[in-house]
Amino acid sequence: MDLKIFDRLESEVRGYIRSFPVVFKQAKGATLVDETGREYIDFFAGAGTLNYGHNNPLFKQKLVEYLESDGIVHGLDMATGAKRTLLETFERVLLKPRNWKYTLQFTGPTGTNAVEAALKLARQVKGRPNVISFTHGFHGLSGGSLAVTANAKYREAAGVSHANTVFMPYDGYFGPDVDTIVYLERMLEDRSSGLDKPAAVIVETVQGEGGINVASLRWLKELQRVCRAHDMLLIVDDIQAGCGRTGSFFSFEPAGIQPDIITLSKSLSGFGLPMSLVLMKPELDVWQPGAHTGTFRGNNLAFVTATAALDHYWTNAAFASDTQRKERIARDHLENIVQSYPGAGLSVRGRGLMQGLVSQDPTFASKVSKKAFEQGLVIETSGANDEVLKLLPSLTIEDEQLKKGLEIIDRAVADVLAEHDAASSARVLKFGNR
Amino acid sequence: MDLKIFDRLESEVRGYIRSFPVVFKQAKGATLVDETGREYIDFFAGAGTLNYGHNNPLFKQKLVEYLESDGIVHGLDMATGAKRTLLETFERVLLKPRNWKYTLQFTGPTGTNAVEAALKLARQVKGRPNVISFTHGFHGLSGGSLAVTANAKYREAAGVSHANTVFMPYDGYFGPDVDTIVYLERMLEDRSSGLDKPAAVIVETVQGEGGINVASLRWLKELQRVCRAHDMLLIVDDIQAGCGRTGSFFSFEPAGIQPDIITLSKSLSGFGLPMSLVLMKPELDVWQPGAHTGTFRGNNLAFVTATAALDHYWTNAAFASDTQRKERIARDHLENIVQSYPGAGLSVRGRGLMQGLVSQDPTFASKVSKKAFEQGLVIETSGANDEVLKLLPSLTIEDEQLKKGLEIIDRAVADVLAEHDAASSARVLKFGNR
Amino acid sequence: MDLKIFDRLESEVRGYIRSFPVVFKQAKGATLVDETGREYIDFFAGAGTLNYGHNNPLFKQKLVEYLESDGIVHGLDMATGAKRTLLETFERVLLKPRNWKYTLQFTGPTGTNAVEAALKLARQVKGRPNVISFTHGFHGLSGGSLAVTANAKYREAAGVSHANTVFMPYDGYFGPDVDTIVYLERMLEDRSSGLDKPAAVIVETVQGEGGINVASLRWLKELQRVCRAHDMLLIVDDIQAGCGRTGSFFSFEPAGIQPDIITLSKSLSGFGLPMSLVLMKPELDVWQPGAHTGTFRGNNLAFVTATAALDHYWTNAAFASDTQRKERIARDHLENIVQSYPGAGLSVRGRGLMQGLVSQDPTFASKVSKKAFEQGLVIETSGANDEVLKLLPSLTIEDEQLKKGLEIIDRAVADVLAEHDAASSARVLKFGNR
Amino acid sequence: MDLKIFDRLESEVRGYIRSFPVVFKQAKGATLVDETGREYIDFFAGAGTLNYGHNNPLFKQKLVEYLESDGIVHGLDMATGAKRTLLETFERVLLKPRNWKYTLQFTGPTGTNAVEAALKLARQVKGRPNVISFTHGFHGLSGGSLAVTANAKYREAAGVSHANTVFMPYDGYFGPDVDTIVYLERMLEDRSSGLDKPAAVIVETVQGEGGINVASLRWLKELQRVCRAHDMLLIVDDIQAGCGRTGSFFSFEPAGIQPDIITLSKSLSGFGLPMSLVLMKPELDVWQPGAHTGTFRGNNLAFVTATAALDHYWTNAAFASDTQRKERIARDHLENIVQSYPGAGLSVRGRGLMQGLVSQDPTFASKVSKKAFEQGLVIETSGANDEVLKLLPSLTIEDEQLKKGLEIIDRAVADVLAEHDAASSARVLKFGNR
Repeated sequence: MDLKIFDRLESEVRGYIRSFPVVFKQAKGATLVDETGREYIDFFAGAGTLNYGHNNPLFKQKLVEYLESDGIVHGLDMATGAKRTLLETFERVLLKPRNWKYTLQFTGPTGTNAVEAALKLARQVKGRPNVISFTHGFHGLSGGSLAVTANAKYREAAGVSHANTVFMPYDGYFGPDVDTIVYLERMLEDRSSGLDKPAAVIVETVQGEGGINVASLRWLKELQRVCRAHDMLLIVDDIQAGCGRTGSFFSFEPAGIQPDIITLSKSLSGFGLPMSLVLMKPELDVWQPGAHTGTFRGNNLAFVTATAALDHYWTNAAFASDTQRKERIARDHLENIVQSYPGAGLSVRGRGLMQGLVSQDPTFASKVSKKAFEQGLVIETSGANDEVLKLLPSLTIEDEQLKKGLEIIDRAVADVLAEHDAASSARVLKFGNR
Repeated sequence: MDLKIFDRLESEVRGYIRSFPVVFKQAKGATLVDETGREYIDFFAGAGTLNYGHNNPLFKQKLVEYLESDGIVHGLDMATGAKRTLLETFERVLLKPRNWKYTLQFTGPTGTNAVEAALKLARQVKGRPNVISFTHGFHGLSGGSLAVTANAKYREAAGVSHANTVFMPYDGYFGPDVDTIVYLERMLEDRSSGLDKPAAVIVETVQGEGGINVASLRWLKELQRVCRAHDMLLIVDDIQAGCGRTGSFFSFEPAGIQPDIITLSKSLSGFGLPMSLVLMKPELDVWQPGAHTGTFRGNNLAFVTATAALDHYWTNAAFASDTQRKERIARDHLENIVQSYPGAGLSVRGRGLMQGLVSQDPTFASKVSKKAFEQGLVIETSGANDEVLKLLPSLTIEDEQLKKGLEIIDRAVADVLAEHDAASSARVLKFGNR
Repeated sequence: MDLKIFDRLESEVRGYIRSFPVVFKQAKGATLVDETGREYIDFFAGAGTLNYGHNNPLFKQKLVEYLESDGIVHGLDMATGAKRTLLETFERVLLKPRNWKYTLQFTGPTGTNAVEAALKLARQVKGRPNVISFTHGFHGLSGGSLAVTANAKYREAAGVSHANTVFMPYDGYFGPDVDTIVYLERMLEDRSSGLDKPAAVIVETVQGEGGINVASLRWLKELQRVCRAHDMLLIVDDIQAGCGRTGSFFSFEPAGIQPDIITLSKSLSGFGLPMSLVLMKPELDVWQPGAHTGTFRGNNLAFVTATAALDHYWTNAAFASDTQRKERIARDHLENIVQSYPGAGLSVRGRGLMQGLVSQDPTFASKVSKKAFEQGLVIETSGANDEVLKLLPSLTIEDEQLKKGLEIIDRAVADVLAEHDAASSARVLKFGNR
Repeated sequence: MDLKIFDRLESEVRGYIRSFPVVFKQAKGATLVDETGREYIDFFAGAGTLNYGHNNPLFKQKLVEYLESDGIVHGLDMATGAKRTLLETFERVLLKPRNWKYTLQFTGPTGTNAVEAALKLARQVKGRPNVISFTHGFHGLSGGSLAVTANAKYREAAGVSHANTVFMPYDGYFGPDVDTIVYLERMLEDRSSGLDKPAAVIVETVQGEGGINVASLRWLKELQRVCRAHDMLLIVDDIQAGCGRTGSFFSFEPAGIQPDIITLSKSLSGFGLPMSLVLMKPELDVWQPGAHTGTFRGNNLAFVTATAALDHYWTNAAFASDTQRKERIARDHLENIVQSYPGAGLSVRGRGLMQGLVSQDPTFASKVSKKAFEQGLVIETSGANDEVLKLLPSLTIEDEQLKKGLEIIDRAVADVLAEHDAASSARVLKFGNR
């Protein structure tokens, strides 16, 4: 496969092409096919964008029909039939059954744009610029979102100082014995802590890019309590963990909380098409008309597939249950791996089909990912030092394929650990030879 | 047509639905159709996103074929066949014939994201945070881009102070007698002007949102000279004025300049699908792998249609010539209007099929837009006070339809001015009666 | 005493005149005299500026002689005899005996100006804008210093957002069981903590305004280690705790550390005259000539008295020993108070003659201060909620006067607690009566 | 004279010691004396701090008396007799005769601290962070003030980005034909100019450090009008131009304006002692008690001499008249110089005893200053490129001494121009010889 033109013409910023250096041509469900016809199981799913699999035939059919009827493709924020149907479906399928009231804002069709809008809104509502974010949090890379994203690699690329954000330790940041909510609350209560009174807290319930760090339900509840007590809005960034990835449509549902603002994107359109939404409690909707816009905020093709996704998967609890069932398959498998190598310092964490195999060796996950790719599995790493092997298969993956993927992980882990042992022995020998 | 659910569920931030309160259902070429079957001529073209018209059949066919073949839809920045074809086509159709060397960065698929990337890159390259933007400039609404966008409505919505940007007067800002480049250069040469040494200048050759303000070719050349003299990068934001809108593919070509960085979006995909690019001179490509990412940067459907657009319209000069021909039709028509109402204080400005009818009465353009819509023409306003009626028809519009749209403008202008005269007379009478 | 003109003409920003509403006329040693001739013992000492007492006769004589000889009063940073003598004395008395190498910068004659210079220098040296400060830290109120000052009352008065500072928990902030250095180091080591790599840490060894919080010597040593390990400069702001206040001339000497930058002011001139210094390790002196200036940085009268202070008090260890002896007197006394009221929730903290009597009742310290003033003792409060009664007598105070002041505190505490008990009883009765 | 210890111990930041490399020992009136007994005429006057001369005997006597009576030296913002007398005198001598109402704030005793307080106040009052400053403006070097200071040398030394300030062209910045107020107003009226609505404008009536640039009285009046029209506070920074330097006590009096906020320092104490004041219209006094403080804000020695200065020089118009008379002497002399060298490109500008001899050759002023110093005159340069020879003699200078100083300038100018001609001839010859 010829990758030369990428090397010649594309910026050094390109990333995944380096991890998976083949040219992909087709995809269906959890299967990717390269130009030579080789198939790969996809445990990456567009970084969580393809919860319903590649080219889900239900959605594809709707899409083709819409195109063939010359439906509106690009609509800015004008009213279209496709948009109205989506609004109706969103209300009927998601809001009414939960008895929730949220107002919807269609932002530019990227996750980072939804976060930008959410932060603007919170600051306008409260009249305060400061916002709290968390260690290892990832919320996007445009200026406003980047300020609340923790990773230095991204922050330094901006070439400017970031302001109006204070980072607090996420749940478990100092180990299981330290309750980081206590820390946060101490800083908020103390007028001399140096913490300027925040307008909002922005949080992921499971940190995807940050290393599959899972906030406990208790911690999330406590966080909501602290927000209420200190007049701060609670923004849940559900871009990666939402849309069913952890089981329920919204990742925070099991915690019984109701955020003031919610951001959605990634799997929202269901088909990998760019689309984003901000949900806000109706009383927070202080926007002036047109005060936050975006050329592609009316991506009607995405509205068509998003509607199909809601209608097909979320009118009853079956899909969520099935995800939980698959979670157990994946989780059991990973825990078996951990137990098989008691001295390897491995562990598992995650919620739903968002699971991480964590090693203390920062090279481990990348090596496993590489081996797995050789064996036909696309899987990525995450975490501050890429120390986590991140499992993000589509939620619609067949059991058989899921298990096959897990088995490839087995072998890859075994290979990597064996090489490591060999290397260690070699080092021992080498030193022994001196 | 039932718009209730929009009122009930969508945020106050919605805008165009207020100007055009119907539900659109279909579209083809320069024609929009609402749910009742009424047709509208489209002089808005998705705010410049639909240069090749709605549902251009050439592109649509490619799109449906791609979908039916289960081509990769969502690819992050992995290599796909569709992306490789686009790269090859971009190089063959745009770069080679001009003998240009640029490196391409696929950013998040919104214009604002391309601007974010361009600004980050410039600041990294020069190691300086400050950037120059211009009065009435519009470059997007995410944090980094918003700082270089001039309009207070957008700036204030952020709820934070913007930093690292200095606004300079655009060409003509103080009238035809003041050369604003002299001002800029004086400030740059003077170490005590208060102007922190900038990394870059970001500029539109024709300001779309800012009111169809046209920079002269001389001014653009001078701006490039000043940038070179003062070690600043020249970023041309060609998101609205590029992709053929002013005739040539890149709007700055007639000025004979070669920007260091170029941003493209809007009509880049050709079909209204979200897509963006940053072009940079190869020596500026200091990006670290993955330092600026975005979930939807690999929107392969857009790559398919973008390829088709380049291949079909830009392999020779015919399309550009045709745009210039249509420019003359539109321009002549608008200048006739101006001459027909010598006392009305109207004027025309623009380049290519990006033309503005300017009034000194800030209510004029909105009234004309409203009247025109009643008569079946979708047309928007722009400028700091919406004082400009903005003509952005698709470049592929049929002559007949173009003329029909212009005639609707004729009548709308006549109606608005007549009402205004009547109102003036009424006022005179009223005062006379006292 | 007539205070009317203060009410009429002076801004609402005035503070201490509200706590001590008399007109002071004269002062000597630790005694203040008001216009009616009433004497007060001074346990405030100009907020730590009068370590050698008011109108110390040794210094006053030198000052009058200098004035009468028409010595240079205002010298900018030109060379004067008085300045040269001070430099020589500083080197001979402070630097040489410790075998230290520091370069001196005479800044504007306020503490905050010294902090501004220190922060600028650190940022220049490291080429990074971010700086770490601590909860409850106070470093001044001009723009640069204010950003590293923790108290919200001051921060909010600026009317702008503060940037480039991250606050970390000071020693003991989460109680005795939490080692806050571990927290700091965890954030520094983690590239995804959200903590932008800092140029420097700024710290007080004892926080004066923050509530007489004392950093342990171990913590300070650890802080220096962390600074070295993470390429950050250590700035000790010794403006209030230095110049002998805690015993040794520099407050950090017992910790065995050697900060990269030291700020001095307050008691530096010895006579209450404005003067400040920044000490920096010679290799850090990257200043361009004239890059940080200040009209009054050559306050030669202060140089004259500062020289006298160094020469008289710091050529041997006697003065430091005497301060430690007085510390024991004050400390024993305060601990007796604490033990006398076991249910009152009082505690003592401090180092040297910088001692605080802490109550959990936020109104306690202010009430004691008020009572004490009625009985002829000037004493202030500090802490985030003014919950600390702050003892800052001059170091030269006579034992008898020190004890007399402490006895006034005894009585004031007794009175306040008695009133409080009465009020509690009254409340009990009142509720009982219902 | 031994300057070694300065080289060894003092930071590279030192400046004036480089221009005047002698050790000064005594001073009286307009005469400085070095350690060898050599006398110098002082045309620098502590950068405008010594308007009443060195060691003015009237003030010195008061000072010594006050010291000998053990008057309060350091008083924070407690009431003292010296402070009350100053308040009474300020009201009687300055406010009442002008029928002005201003509230006084005693800030930290540096000019920059007064500016910090003024900016904080304006931002609090208007609730907006942005502030307008002018090209070549100098307002101090602490964080808040530095942001409104134009010179890059100072700005870059901070190591951080400056925010919340927009620089506008000062009167005459683009030559005599451009009215820069028009520019300012255009930007303010245009909601899309990129200028965030400012809380205040800060301006010097004559820019001292910026190069003796004089704002016309018409321009100042217009500036006040624009401030009122756009709801911005007008802050006149009268630290260098005030206290009689331009004739009247306040430099803006001839323009007939009444600023909302005024900053005073430098010659305010009259004796070179650190002291500063902010005057604000009473209705602007929104300060919370203690929200802006400073250890040395109660520098009572300065209050004693400031009182004496007001009482002695400002109870009638004689002193101002005398300054204007001396202005004519200096001005005539300088204009003679200009006319004597018609080809040298010299010019004069200034108001009162704040006059500049301007050359287009950026090395000229420094050379003249150097020559003059050799001949016994201390005189400094200013301007963005030090292109202005700045005359700032004390206002109390004897006519004879003033003329003697001017004659030294004559000779120095002649010498520098002669050398320059010789060098030019030499160059010509050299080229001629080829």
